[in-house]
Amino acid sequence: MLWDDMELDFAKLDGILPAVIQDHATGRVLMVGFMNEEAWARTIETGCAVFYSRSRKKLWLKGETSGHRLLVKEITTDCDQDSVVLRVEAVGPGVCHNGFESCFYRKWEDGAWQVTDTQTFDPNQVYGG
Amino acid sequence: MLWDDMELDFAKLDGILPAVIQDHATGRVLMVGFMNEEAWARTIETGCAVFYSRSRKKLWLKGETSGHRLLVKEITTDCDQDSVVLRVEAVGPGVCHNGFESCFYRKWEDGAWQVTDTQTFDPNQVYGG
Repeated sequence: MLWDDMELDFAKLDGILPAVIQDHATGRVLMVGFMNEEAWARTIETGCAVFYSRSRKKLWLKGETSGHRLLVKEITTDCDQDSVVLRVEAVGPGVCHNGFESCFYRKWEDGAWQVTDTQTFDPNQVYGG
Repeated sequence: MLWDDMELDFAKLDGILPAVIQDHATGRVLMVGFMNEEAWARTIETGCAVFYSRSRKKLWLKGETSGHRLLVKEITTDCDQDSVVLRVEAVGPGVCHNGFESCFYRKWEDGAWQVTDTQTFDPNQVYGG
């Protein structure tokens, strides 16, 4: 279990696993997506993060619409091999479809979620409203 | 959707959501766990990360056995409110039951997973072998 190079474990979540996307320079967590085996293979092949969209039930090349691709610099996996962390260079002003650098733009403060970031781009211009 | 303080969305994964644990000082991702609503509530109440163990199907206070608790410094959530990032102070030499600072001690290199960290403690001494 500890030292070998076995495959990722997609079984625990019925074929997907969480992929944490972290800015390679700042360490900020930009988003959390999910990958199935095909998304994982495509990510490795292309060097750009590819996810499995749970809502659309299909592969999703991040940046296909916006151009905001995630260029993979480093990938690590955890002890159980059921999640991955990708350190990336994020092309463009932000990864979030709401116009923020990071999808994690809300902080838990005083018992509620508070928006603590400012938008870095206009999502209507990028995603066509 | 964008500005309000609505509740976390546990529905997409049948009652759980991924919780990314990040060292508050270094930004290193230490582990990815899952929370159900009760684990989330207990985390907020206690200030220590509480997870839902998918294998044992019950709440799991991280550090209950090892003493390696995760003291929560900051919590953020993403645009869809279906994942959280906790910045923590990790008590002890490491969070991983295999004896590493981070569960993410293996890197993808040359088409395989390579252990690129060194152990920071002996897991047999901490977890009783």
